[in-house]
Amino acid sequence: MTKGGVGGGGVAPGAERLSLNTATTKKWTLREAVDGCVRAGIGAIGPWRDRVHEAGLSEAAAMIRAAGLEVSSLCRGGFLTAADAEGQAAALADNRAAVREAEALGTRDLYLVVGGLTGGSKDVVAARQRIADRLGELAPFAHEYGVRLVLEPLHPMYAADRALVSTLGQALDLAEPFAPSDVGVAVDTFHVWWDPQLREQIARAGRVGRLASYQVCDFNLPIAADALLSRGMMGDGVIDFPTITTWVREAGYAGLIEVEIFNQEIWDGDNDATLEAMKERYAKLVLPFA
Amino acid sequence: MTKGGVGGGGVAPGAERLSLNTATTKKWTLREAVDGCVRAGIGAIGPWRDRVHEAGLSEAAAMIRAAGLEVSSLCRGGFLTAADAEGQAAALADNRAAVREAEALGTRDLYLVVGGLTGGSKDVVAARQRIADRLGELAPFAHEYGVRLVLEPLHPMYAADRALVSTLGQALDLAEPFAPSDVGVAVDTFHVWWDPQLREQIARAGRVGRLASYQVCDFNLPIAADALLSRGMMGDGVIDFPTITTWVREAGYAGLIEVEIFNQEIWDGDNDATLEAMKERYAKLVLPFA
Repeated sequence: MTKGGVGGGGVAPGAERLSLNTATTKKWTLREAVDGCVRAGIGAIGPWRDRVHEAGLSEAAAMIRAAGLEVSSLCRGGFLTAADAEGQAAALADNRAAVREAEALGTRDLYLVVGGLTGGSKDVVAARQRIADRLGELAPFAHEYGVRLVLEPLHPMYAADRALVSTLGQALDLAEPFAPSDVGVAVDTFHVWWDPQLREQIARAGRVGRLASYQVCDFNLPIAADALLSRGMMGDGVIDFPTITTWVREAGYAGLIEVEIFNQEIWDGDNDATLEAMKERYAKLVLPFA
Repeated sequence: MTKGGVGGGGVAPGAERLSLNTATTKKWTLREAVDGCVRAGIGAIGPWRDRVHEAGLSEAAAMIRAAGLEVSSLCRGGFLTAADAEGQAAALADNRAAVREAEALGTRDLYLVVGGLTGGSKDVVAARQRIADRLGELAPFAHEYGVRLVLEPLHPMYAADRALVSTLGQALDLAEPFAPSDVGVAVDTFHVWWDPQLREQIARAGRVGRLASYQVCDFNLPIAADALLSRGMMGDGVIDFPTITTWVREAGYAGLIEVEIFNQEIWDGDNDATLEAMKERYAKLVLPFA
């Protein structure tokens, strides 16, 4: 799990399982994010595809490898709910590309945000069936590449336009027909903290071997005017990190822990300072329970 | 169920089960809302307590009765999560008052919005236990008055500050220790439309005799800058009313259907026009399936 010598300087004590999701430092290129991690002694990175494309796939893989960073995941594939043949073909093509990118970057975990309502339809039951159908087509392809499709339940406030998978239990139900090594689930504290079934579904995810990724960030109030940007630095919002992290540990999760924050104030600030704050809050609220 | 002669004019055809929740016509006093219902041929009203207090309880009850309106519910009690003795005593006192008001107004259904995190605590497990404890104290009191406490699951985006009951399944679990005539649940389309377990939990609510109230309004996108005001007129948002209404009917619900919309644009508009729009959208999207 732990890197020996990120950038030659080594991983900062206590940061052995910490990973920077590049959405947190939105204005940085991948090069800048990699260098930032090295400066901060953060040994892992979870890149978004737009920053990978911008750098070029093989260049991205090479620069991450050269810096001694581990890749915790790739964000993201998904958007599987199109009802028309053209939309479905485009989604499959894009997700296959994402699988190949994950393999090239050396991560086995590809996040999927499954998609919301499309084409003016309000039929959530049918849209959810299409998600299951597309997964059935994608899972064998991902398997060939040794990549796991990681279903991320999103907060129900994003159900209509981003993800009709809203709970961990639902994600696990959707994953059930597939091998745990091919389809897993993610726990992102922001999205699932409110779920009354959270403890039992985290335990279930561990039991069935599908707990693929753990992302931490806070849920800030009031909800931001752009609701997507309500994610906050751990400790700034309402989430009980010690409790949820304990549940995740008890479920057997011992992997990397990504910090992924969409927040205009953080994006406008100094990214090196963000990485320092991330390490401090993680050390206080997450690490002792992980 | 149906009124004979609301205001002497009778209920408008098709509006026999329709009820105006007074939050929809926020700027109207109770008197104005009652008169508006009579003009529109709407035979039932679901008042909020602030408008009842303003009118005076016995005056409110008398004016509703004189107009020939049925009272579908009273909004609302709840906020049961205080951890300190003083806060708990205040919550019990307020909820007992609400029970007495419901009885005086002639409705058996008192909505409860259970409350969120309080006093800086982030412990949702403990806060939920306090909700159960307070319910245990309130239910016998409500029983004496023939009033049913109606647990309303709120959308998870309000979990932290308004209601730590976020799903219908959770509300039914919480209700289980009590008689169905004392503690029921509400289905408000805005709050629960996204729930992957919605169909089965509506059916369960019917089966166990706890489906006490059905409220309709839409979920508008984008989410309003003040997230509380994202409720919309049926048809303006993402909700599939025919499907959810069918599930509610199949669960055996044959009661009044309230329209409750918090929406700045609607509040700023003409309330009589709102009532007409309500009747039209209800006739098109709800009534044929109810």
